[in-house]
Amino acid sequence: MRENILGLECVLPDGTVAKCGTRALKSSAGYDLTSLMTGSEGTLGIITNVTCKLHPIPEHVIAAVCVFDDLYQAAEAVAALKLCDVPVARCELLDESSIVAFNQYNETRNEGACIEPMEVKPTLFLEFQGASATAVEEQATMTESIFAGDYGGSNFRYTSDEAERKDLWSARHNLYYASLALRPGAEGAVLTDACVPLSKFAELVSATAEDVKEKGVIGPCFGHAADGNFHCILPIIEGDSEEYLANVHQVNDNLIQRTLAAGGTCTGEHGVGYGKIKYLVQQYRPGGVHMMRMVKQGIDPLNLMNPGKIIE
Amino acid sequence: MRENILGLECVLPDGTVAKCGTRALKSSAGYDLTSLMTGSEGTLGIITNVTCKLHPIPEHVIAAVCVFDDLYQAAEAVAALKLCDVPVARCELLDESSIVAFNQYNETRNEGACIEPMEVKPTLFLEFQGASATAVEEQATMTESIFAGDYGGSNFRYTSDEAERKDLWSARHNLYYASLALRPGAEGAVLTDACVPLSKFAELVSATAEDVKEKGVIGPCFGHAADGNFHCILPIIEGDSEEYLANVHQVNDNLIQRTLAAGGTCTGEHGVGYGKIKYLVQQYRPGGVHMMRMVKQGIDPLNLMNPGKIIE
Repeated sequence: MRENILGLECVLPDGTVAKCGTRALKSSAGYDLTSLMTGSEGTLGIITNVTCKLHPIPEHVIAAVCVFDDLYQAAEAVAALKLCDVPVARCELLDESSIVAFNQYNETRNEGACIEPMEVKPTLFLEFQGASATAVEEQATMTESIFAGDYGGSNFRYTSDEAERKDLWSARHNLYYASLALRPGAEGAVLTDACVPLSKFAELVSATAEDVKEKGVIGPCFGHAADGNFHCILPIIEGDSEEYLANVHQVNDNLIQRTLAAGGTCTGEHGVGYGKIKYLVQQYRPGGVHMMRMVKQGIDPLNLMNPGKIIE
Repeated sequence: MRENILGLECVLPDGTVAKCGTRALKSSAGYDLTSLMTGSEGTLGIITNVTCKLHPIPEHVIAAVCVFDDLYQAAEAVAALKLCDVPVARCELLDESSIVAFNQYNETRNEGACIEPMEVKPTLFLEFQGASATAVEEQATMTESIFAGDYGGSNFRYTSDEAERKDLWSARHNLYYASLALRPGAEGAVLTDACVPLSKFAELVSATAEDVKEKGVIGPCFGHAADGNFHCILPIIEGDSEEYLANVHQVNDNLIQRTLAAGGTCTGEHGVGYGKIKYLVQQYRPGGVHMMRMVKQGIDPLNLMNPGKIIE
């Protein structure tokens, strides 16, 4: 998101209306206030206007799905794709538990619908985009060659038809509610959100999936694999035993500890809020958190804006 | 540059060592201190360590050069290329005056060298890169078709040989010293640096080149066209008349005024220092500058770090 925001306008705690950024694609005119405000969770001011970068709608799109015998291999395959510089517009990894969730959800929900159950294996969903049909097809071919050749990828399916693309991606799009449905009665979930260097992604995703199994909790794992960002959806039910809840939180804590040891971040997308404040000192050491506090005190000395979030 | 910096370590004015960012490709864990420090020109602390994003060396590269009858058309051609979503790794625009500078410089410097004089017309230097030879060739073909079809681009030359690529790009690489050599005795130059939305790029570049002619000063114009960033090199000589210097500074001021009116930034790469402080209030309105001052005061209340730069 951040790289698509060129500028914004915000109202600061003292009432100042501040213009941040410009409409130009780059700038070195003073402090990058746009990026400072983006993701500041309302703790520095209220954003009242945003200028976004626009991208052309791609002329040619191919959606692809393929499976792997092993979650680790599936994740490594994505890192290899990036190292080989093959452009991929979207790349999502789902573990076996996610596919089970989708199949069950699909069976109960789609009365008479034609979506076939998916093979229960770690699965990658991909999308290739570009201005040229040849180039986009070649990206798909190169990907299949890397995945099948070195990582055991198989059962490749492709489509460029828009309706079929949506069908092919439906397992990914329905994943949150499908995961909740794995535990009848669940109305919410602990949703983890860590992001690690790509070289550590396979290790972290597979360790988390193992952890979920060992702790005996329900928790489909999936990831925005090309970014090294992954989530685990851990549905909870009102009345869950303390032990169950402790296991759920332990899965989250373990994955964050592994993430921080790997040089990653405790949140890739969802933010800090109250819940992840405790990890910031570990992630940025006391000095980094001290610097955030200096920024907060400089802009909001009376602690008026969303107090208690990010900075204690 | 900014988007290639994942994290950094800095020493703050109070002696704190602050860790900013992580090794992950994205993060929403608190304020984006990495981007705040990047380009802060030493006014917030001393950067002691930087973590950069690495990119694979492209398997296939094609360098290209072509000319246009008109500077405006050349700049518009680049905007069209971006709108058509054709990937281009490098894209540099040189005006006629830049080509004159190169030809003269080349003639005097390369005794017996084989680099031919270039046609004196607005010229685009491009580079296409990728993992596939077919895709890269296709990018070049699509570019020629857009440029020649709608913008009068001609005299396309291509090479994928590394030594030939360097030769082809030499006019661009030697431009600074070639421009100085246009005014014998010049040891420095006023180097402008503005960045505008792509839709305004053609208008701004050609207005600046016109302005240089009208004021009767020497000032080759060139730009990182795909970013909307352009420069004008205005060589000055010790002993230049006040009138000449006034004209040089007027060219710079005019281009910044046009840039700000177009929603751009007074500096795309070079920074603010002392010289461009006066434009910041206009660019960000008083509110944006006030917010920068709040950040500065929060981190450096005693104004110890590079005082007087960016913030008065």
